Amino acid sequence: MESRHYIRFLFFFVGIATLLAITWNNLPYAPPDATEDFDCTTYSSWCTSKNRFQSKPLKEPAKSTSHHHDHASDTPHHPLDPLTVKEINRVRTILTSHELFKNSFPYAFHSITLQEPKKSLVLNWNKGDSLLPRKASVVARVQNISYVLAVDLTTEEVTVHETDSSSGYPAMTIEDMTSSTWAPLADEEFNRTILERGVDLKDLACLPISLGWYGEKEENRRLIKVQCYSMKDTANFYMRPIEGLTILLDMDTKEVLEITDKGKNIPIPKAVNTDYRYSAQGFVIEDEHLVKWANWEFHLKPDPRAGAIVSQARVRDPDSGEIRNVMYKGFTSELFVPYMDPTDAWYFKTYMDAGEYGFGLQAMPLDPLNDCPRNAHYMDGVFPAADGTPYVRSNMICIFESYAGDIGWRHAESPITGMGIKEVRPKVTLVVRMAASVANYDYIVDWEFQTDGLIRIKASTAYENMNQISNQAENLFGTLLSENVIGVIHDHFITFYLDMDIDGSDNSFVKVNIKRQETSPGESPRRSYLKADRNVAKTEKDAQIKLKLYDPAEFHVINPTKKTRVGNPVGYKVVPGGTAASLLDREDPPQKRGAFTNNQIWVTPYNESEQWAGGLFVYQSKGEDTLAVWSDR
Amino acid sequence: MESRHYIRFLFFFVGIATLLAITWNNLPYAPPDATEDFDCTTYSSWCTSKNRFQSKPLKEPAKSTSHHHDHASDTPHHPLDPLTVKEINRVRTILTSHELFKNSFPYAFHSITLQEPKKSLVLNWNKGDSLLPRKASVVARVQNISYVLAVDLTTEEVTVHETDSSSGYPAMTIEDMTSSTWAPLADEEFNRTILERGVDLKDLACLPISLGWYGEKEENRRLIKVQCYSMKDTANFYMRPIEGLTILLDMDTKEVLEITDKGKNIPIPKAVNTDYRYSAQGFVIEDEHLVKWANWEFHLKPDPRAGAIVSQARVRDPDSGEIRNVMYKGFTSELFVPYMDPTDAWYFKTYMDAGEYGFGLQAMPLDPLNDCPRNAHYMDGVFPAADGTPYVRSNMICIFESYAGDIGWRHAESPITGMGIKEVRPKVTLVVRMAASVANYDYIVDWEFQTDGLIRIKASTAYENMNQISNQAENLFGTLLSENVIGVIHDHFITFYLDMDIDGSDNSFVKVNIKRQETSPGESPRRSYLKADRNVAKTEKDAQIKLKLYDPAEFHVINPTKKTRVGNPVGYKVVPGGTAASLLDREDPPQKRGAFTNNQIWVTPYNESEQWAGGLFVYQSKGEDTLAVWSDR
Repeated sequence: MESRHYIRFLFFFVGIATLLAITWNNLPYAPPDATEDFDCTTYSSWCTSKNRFQSKPLKEPAKSTSHHHDHASDTPHHPLDPLTVKEINRVRTILTSHELFKNSFPYAFHSITLQEPKKSLVLNWNKGDSLLPRKASVVARVQNISYVLAVDLTTEEVTVHETDSSSGYPAMTIEDMTSSTWAPLADEEFNRTILERGVDLKDLACLPISLGWYGEKEENRRLIKVQCYSMKDTANFYMRPIEGLTILLDMDTKEVLEITDKGKNIPIPKAVNTDYRYSAQGFVIEDEHLVKWANWEFHLKPDPRAGAIVSQARVRDPDSGEIRNVMYKGFTSELFVPYMDPTDAWYFKTYMDAGEYGFGLQAMPLDPLNDCPRNAHYMDGVFPAADGTPYVRSNMICIFESYAGDIGWRHAESPITGMGIKEVRPKVTLVVRMAASVANYDYIVDWEFQTDGLIRIKASTAYENMNQISNQAENLFGTLLSENVIGVIHDHFITFYLDMDIDGSDNSFVKVNIKRQETSPGESPRRSYLKADRNVAKTEKDAQIKLKLYDPAEFHVINPTKKTRVGNPVGYKVVPGGTAASLLDREDPPQKRGAFTNNQIWVTPYNESEQWAGGLFVYQSKGEDTLAVWSDR
Repeated sequence: MESRHYIRFLFFFVGIATLLAITWNNLPYAPPDATEDFDCTTYSSWCTSKNRFQSKPLKEPAKSTSHHHDHASDTPHHPLDPLTVKEINRVRTILTSHELFKNSFPYAFHSITLQEPKKSLVLNWNKGDSLLPRKASVVARVQNISYVLAVDLTTEEVTVHETDSSSGYPAMTIEDMTSSTWAPLADEEFNRTILERGVDLKDLACLPISLGWYGEKEENRRLIKVQCYSMKDTANFYMRPIEGLTILLDMDTKEVLEITDKGKNIPIPKAVNTDYRYSAQGFVIEDEHLVKWANWEFHLKPDPRAGAIVSQARVRDPDSGEIRNVMYKGFTSELFVPYMDPTDAWYFKTYMDAGEYGFGLQAMPLDPLNDCPRNAHYMDGVFPAADGTPYVRSNMICIFESYAGDIGWRHAESPITGMGIKEVRPKVTLVVRMAASVANYDYIVDWEFQTDGLIRIKASTAYENMNQISNQAENLFGTLLSENVIGVIHDHFITFYLDMDIDGSDNSFVKVNIKRQETSPGESPRRSYLKADRNVAKTEKDAQIKLKLYDPAEFHVINPTKKTRVGNPVGYKVVPGGTAASLLDREDPPQKRGAFTNNQIWVTPYNESEQWAGGLFVYQSKGEDTLAVWSDR
């Protein structure tokens, strides 16, 4: 209650600790000519250069999908609306004629997203006001240097920030990932190796795997590791690895730098019996992105890195009728997935799904009636390809009203009182969902809004295909799942960014410690009881939280300037769900990079640039720009 | 994998740690003549002697309830079916002519339930076989001695076990609770005290509160404490306590032993603005109790102490078509709710809801469409009153198919593979629900069955009415919730009994510890990784589990004699949900009684009599018969 103006947003992570593994990796192999087959209206999740949105609208009508929206003429309505097709094309036009790009080759746009207006301007903006100046934030690499650019769409002004020389590259582009899967085929030794392992080239599926950072010899160039599988007789090729074979590739030159094959004697698993194929609109969405349901309203947008971003969540007070601020912004900040096998083909698998691959980029179109129920509304993403051309990621997010038959509130009085009270209110919620298919596992992230004001974030790897291999014959790094297939132990840590603005921006973080008190002799027949101590965090250190089961605490974000009728500050309680801790050595390279998992909750003062818990440029970074570094600073 | 024949069932508890309190207590006050108003067909949750089932069926048709079933002619179909109206009447007839009861007064039946046949007989019984001999297990008190009796309904043989002299009484009867609320009115000093506090007797509501055990002076008689409230101008009388007033009553003689009033200067809160009033049958239930849904089947019955009991849960193997055993029996074994205020009017509030009040007895009829959705089926309980007369607790359990719009399983392959795979299966589950209204909070316990074989038990105090008072003006034992009302800190610990029989009764308990391993210098670019160590529990001590966030483990119940295709034992993983630990001093009287919360998981060898984690006779017990005692023995 004492402090204020202090703490504005917090990060917290939930870990999904899975023992019986799965692997992580990314894009399955595509032979170079297979790209001819795609049609963006059907496969908009994975658009190729042939089918991208050009500056004019599509001529043909939409193919049969349950939802189609012609995005070519989209216009923004709200300051936080994502960039439209027209705006991305405009950014591209402005930049390609800019001197940095005009005479330079190669260059690639790693991301083009809305640069959100200053928070104060957004907070003052009202519907009907003229839109705030639209700006784009662009991450680009030009002749192997990373740049962060701001493009003003009105004035066409371009601001260029060359990034400093510290480690880390932008998240891969889709082109980076795709080309890395077939680039090794240009190498004769690679082809020979595959054939020696008894795999026909037509059955080959290769995956691009980010390599983390493990010392000097991997510095100063953009590298990737590639591992391959046999697709023969199975859709579930993850069960048929060419174990022990790892290719180190220069992602820029596509040159094969090294082929390691330590698995010549390991048979390729048969993968028998491991196939898995099976062959009420209560809300309003205004202006494409403003969701209004029950007493809630919030802005929702797809993002190529974060997946879904919820902004300006507000809830209507049932008594006063007043609309009250709850959260300025919330999204999935980073995912850290370290595998637990230190051997050559596995040690580097310590993925950062958002910063290395793009969590939103991996979100496949949701499947109506299966991924989301009948009454769902779907929202598309509009993202740029590496050359800046926009394409549509259709049905990327769904929004639906959910009633599971659960009870929201109840109290029944015993009939003996004669009061005859039985008050029960069914629990109906609004769910915002995205599902990212990250190779052989699928993340589902749900934001669930309750009428009582609660916001619940659920992250799950809903029935992963639990299969991956190890080069160990023994049950050492996992459990045997199918013939010759071992599940390697690994963790999934998911970190959320939550900028809470409860009844305004001046919020404090309160830790309520529950402690045992002993009574004095004779004071009471009880020897002990529990007491709650409230402590307002005064420094960032105070707000680095390690959960302790036997030294429990509650965590409140309060507005000390707003009181309830009886004088308590208004606030929200932050309740971690399935929690986990990283047990890795703090000095282990993956843990330095994933240092944001050293605590389960961190609260830092508002800083517009600190959004990505693993840093802006995560790829191959050493961890100089993580949440842990900001918080200690 | 090594050991077998060892461990058969386990207890584990989840704690709902609520900081912002509520109180616990039980039956609101009823003036003695108010009981005239009840009609069992409407208020079957709370039947009085005038409206109980007599030996002949009801003559009038059922009143308007969404579901009515004439239980007078019920017959058992399955060996585990609960006692019917006819059978309870028969037990009563047999016992009232038995020499123990014939010439004795007073006596009371504290429970009359099915004495389940030996497990081996039940396992060998098949539908169509003649029913196994029906027996009743009776807990009775005769002239202040507690007895456990077995009554054979065929032979009329009665076996009498007088209980030993150790502490503890049976759970209160409903008559005990009801009469305790009005008994103080016979005491002049009590009446005077109420008037002195400014409360009109017509506005008085009193609650019977179990007192635990706090030393010798409370031994050798059945006591209860009574605290009172004003109902004036509110339905939410819990907000209007007559604070500081506690009456100690002899439950057998109804004599007021002591009136303590330490609250003469504490005003009765006004309770302004605290009122809360608001003005697909995919499954089959055979023979009233055998539930069949999707690939599941299980037996379900209401129980006055446990609430709902799930037996013989079995799941059909999708590959072999074979029905496989999963769990022999599961139920809520005990609930422990210690409050955290050591002062006179509060220290003893350390409730055991199942063993002191009867968790099933407190289950009020579920409210169709609000408590359970449209497609729900309802199951009634048939329980005996203290004189042995059966009555119907209608709509006590509901069973329904739930679809929340969630995803059961998914995997989408990147379209670049050309495989065009997108497999998503919606998550549809079967839910078994009961809701116990325990004074001003309502517990909801759901057993949820998934088609993938998972069983989830969810316990919640769904929107409790978060109000209770303390005699402290300062924010010492809780938080100010409304004018003059403080929420006293307390915990809810709920312990479940799970007799797992995975593919048969020979199951083992395996603890899988996840430990950090450091690599040797030069072995790997990684410094550390995690390794799983499997340890089969060899003693009960090995299977006393304290959860540790930073020393994590998984818990498996396996059948070491049955292997999967690749040689792993079949098994289930036990995944604790919201977990908590009791922080009370181990020597504190409430913690000795609630010692089953000293560990989160206990596994003990099968022993038919060890079902109730707090002991058979919990009321006023010192804790000599808890799970902690059995496990250490």
